[in-house]
Amino acid sequence: MRSLPPVSRRNFLVTSGAGAAGLCVAGSAGGYSAAEMRGFTADDKLIGISKWEIDTPALCVDIDKLSQNIATMKTKLAEMKVASRPHAKTHKCPTIAKMQLAGGSIGICTAKLSEAEVFSTHGIESILMTTSNVSPNKIRRAMQLRLTNPKFIQAVDFPPNARDLNDAAREAGVVADVVIDVAVGTRSGIPADDRALELAQLVDKLPHLKLRGVISYDGGAQHIKGFKNRLEQTLNHFAPSVAIYERMKRAGLNTEIFSGGGTGTYNILPKAPGITDLQVGSYIFMDCQYLEIGCESNEEVFTDFTPSLTVVSTVLNTYFPNSITTDAGAKALTLNKPGPWVVGEKSFAYNAGSDEFGVIKYETAGRSYKVGDKLELIVPHCDPVVNEYDQMYAIRGDRVEAVWPIAARGRSQ
Amino acid sequence: MRSLPPVSRRNFLVTSGAGAAGLCVAGSAGGYSAAEMRGFTADDKLIGISKWEIDTPALCVDIDKLSQNIATMKTKLAEMKVASRPHAKTHKCPTIAKMQLAGGSIGICTAKLSEAEVFSTHGIESILMTTSNVSPNKIRRAMQLRLTNPKFIQAVDFPPNARDLNDAAREAGVVADVVIDVAVGTRSGIPADDRALELAQLVDKLPHLKLRGVISYDGGAQHIKGFKNRLEQTLNHFAPSVAIYERMKRAGLNTEIFSGGGTGTYNILPKAPGITDLQVGSYIFMDCQYLEIGCESNEEVFTDFTPSLTVVSTVLNTYFPNSITTDAGAKALTLNKPGPWVVGEKSFAYNAGSDEFGVIKYETAGRSYKVGDKLELIVPHCDPVVNEYDQMYAIRGDRVEAVWPIAARGRSQ
Repeated sequence: MRSLPPVSRRNFLVTSGAGAAGLCVAGSAGGYSAAEMRGFTADDKLIGISKWEIDTPALCVDIDKLSQNIATMKTKLAEMKVASRPHAKTHKCPTIAKMQLAGGSIGICTAKLSEAEVFSTHGIESILMTTSNVSPNKIRRAMQLRLTNPKFIQAVDFPPNARDLNDAAREAGVVADVVIDVAVGTRSGIPADDRALELAQLVDKLPHLKLRGVISYDGGAQHIKGFKNRLEQTLNHFAPSVAIYERMKRAGLNTEIFSGGGTGTYNILPKAPGITDLQVGSYIFMDCQYLEIGCESNEEVFTDFTPSLTVVSTVLNTYFPNSITTDAGAKALTLNKPGPWVVGEKSFAYNAGSDEFGVIKYETAGRSYKVGDKLELIVPHCDPVVNEYDQMYAIRGDRVEAVWPIAARGRSQ
Repeated sequence: MRSLPPVSRRNFLVTSGAGAAGLCVAGSAGGYSAAEMRGFTADDKLIGISKWEIDTPALCVDIDKLSQNIATMKTKLAEMKVASRPHAKTHKCPTIAKMQLAGGSIGICTAKLSEAEVFSTHGIESILMTTSNVSPNKIRRAMQLRLTNPKFIQAVDFPPNARDLNDAAREAGVVADVVIDVAVGTRSGIPADDRALELAQLVDKLPHLKLRGVISYDGGAQHIKGFKNRLEQTLNHFAPSVAIYERMKRAGLNTEIFSGGGTGTYNILPKAPGITDLQVGSYIFMDCQYLEIGCESNEEVFTDFTPSLTVVSTVLNTYFPNSITTDAGAKALTLNKPGPWVVGEKSFAYNAGSDEFGVIKYETAGRSYKVGDKLELIVPHCDPVVNEYDQMYAIRGDRVEAVWPIAARGRSQ
């Protein structure tokens, strides 16, 4: 594990982490009352009980901190004059998507078609799917979704795929909205050269497709440590995408959407010319990976947003010296690094490498632990952790206010 | 990635891997006909289609290979005169549990109470829960399960917990069956010294508990590379557990169960005196982690069982030299190492580190790949991969014969 000076992670965990009550004032971004929150609940018998009494491992989200994060992002992006189109792959939860839309977001993104279908079924209309659909069946499904949801937009990065989409749109009797996915790096998207411009021109000409603009996401930039490094590298990597956007604009093509960025670059990408909206995801929950990258005002800990997502776990075994075994392993926390942070403890090293058990090694502990005690953990990486649970407990103070179904969990298709 | 000589992994993937049709003869361990298999199906419209046409990422299990693995384990354990009590945390699927019972297993294990509840609801009676229940609510639930399922056995490793179980059993009006979990290593269980014997004596005296014997699992032993190393270390580590079992026996305590082991030690642990049954899990599916440890007859690849579990994925991007992007990332394959093996390719390095995408780097490929092509992947570690999917496609030949709900998926509580 990385060794940090005492001013940073250690103090953060003890004084201002997810377990520090009273730090965050209730936000009103979502605009939902307690009664409305209960309306989303799948499991009424748990309402009102303490989060320390839920069977564990339990995925919990602090409603006030979640709302505060949504409000903070709204304020910050308003200052920078860009919108947010949050990535719903992070939470997979229609309730949270609705809170984001109520908090000013212009729509949501999804990574997968089956996610888009779930959110659309739950009444969310403005959905931008950031991955292309390439198989015949998914293209058919995408056009069926477009039939029922006129605000569905999909990405394309390959000319033959654009022609396939056009054919399927004609067959379905729709004109399908499309954005060009321009690559940053070598994972997805069309290279940011003449080919991207030519693809945009092709889409513009195909009668059953409507060109809406450009998306361009730099997955590698989000977790660059240190704000200055991140700023410089992000804008350098993104320059070719800006050039494509500007060439499309000069060519008279529709560029009403120029979308990219994430939580790590939320206050960096708006400096790129033309950016209309950010695909921020993790800001609502935060996680150890993001906490570690630092921010503009704190090189050690990313404090612009507050960890709202935790897993509550139970101590199962304390027989062995300087070791605690818990009931939350890889199936509850994933294998992402850094390992989970234990709220209230400065130096616990939590290993979630076993499927069913967590193992904590420590030299000194802030308190004594016995079998049956509960621990609260900030998760390593929020997206895949959420994807392991069918529901999350929405907590206000220390009480369960609602149980939110993670309706798009497992929708990886 | 580990570099292997050409005789091993490389040839295995091309000549005898999961994609090599016709290698495995259909087994009859499950005793289910195609019509019966269809009876388990959640998604009728997919029956009969090619596995290459399912929307991806798709979790597939080859029925013939699965059945063959069950039959092989039955034969091998019969020779060694021990039974199997397979760990259902691997598959979380009642259909497969029933195939194992039909194939001679004496019961199943579960890691979590919520898993035990699901399997019991699906008609499986003989369930041994290998983790202790320590919170008041789980203890109550465990006793409720015991009320409806007289063949439910739970583990205990802590004297105060034994007393809590006894109190809850009295309150529920049952006598609850209990095994002592004796530690190998420092993760779970009671240390294999006087304390273990005293706990057994305590359980034996508590009027609402019935002592059934001992479980003792060595998680660290299963993946020791090289059969001779594994044999030696397993039996050394296990000697203190055998000593406890023998002391319990001499003390006149009930030791009718002495259960332990896993797929990596299935033909090693029966050499320990007194072992009654093995908690084997992964043998039904196999995975890259187990393939890499070697077996008695092959130091490089564990060939006693055949990989039956694969993920079918689609190629999304081929723009970048020596690189292929797929639609199966960490949410479809986990972060476990080694990364997935691509069936039919000798040297692809598959990185499932992105949440939504897989990235393959290669120098040479056995064929050319284009957008929309399908790949079949042997999974890194079967248990947590299964836990990411709500259903698996049961394949015979190349056709979907049934869709099996993974009913205990996400039951980590």
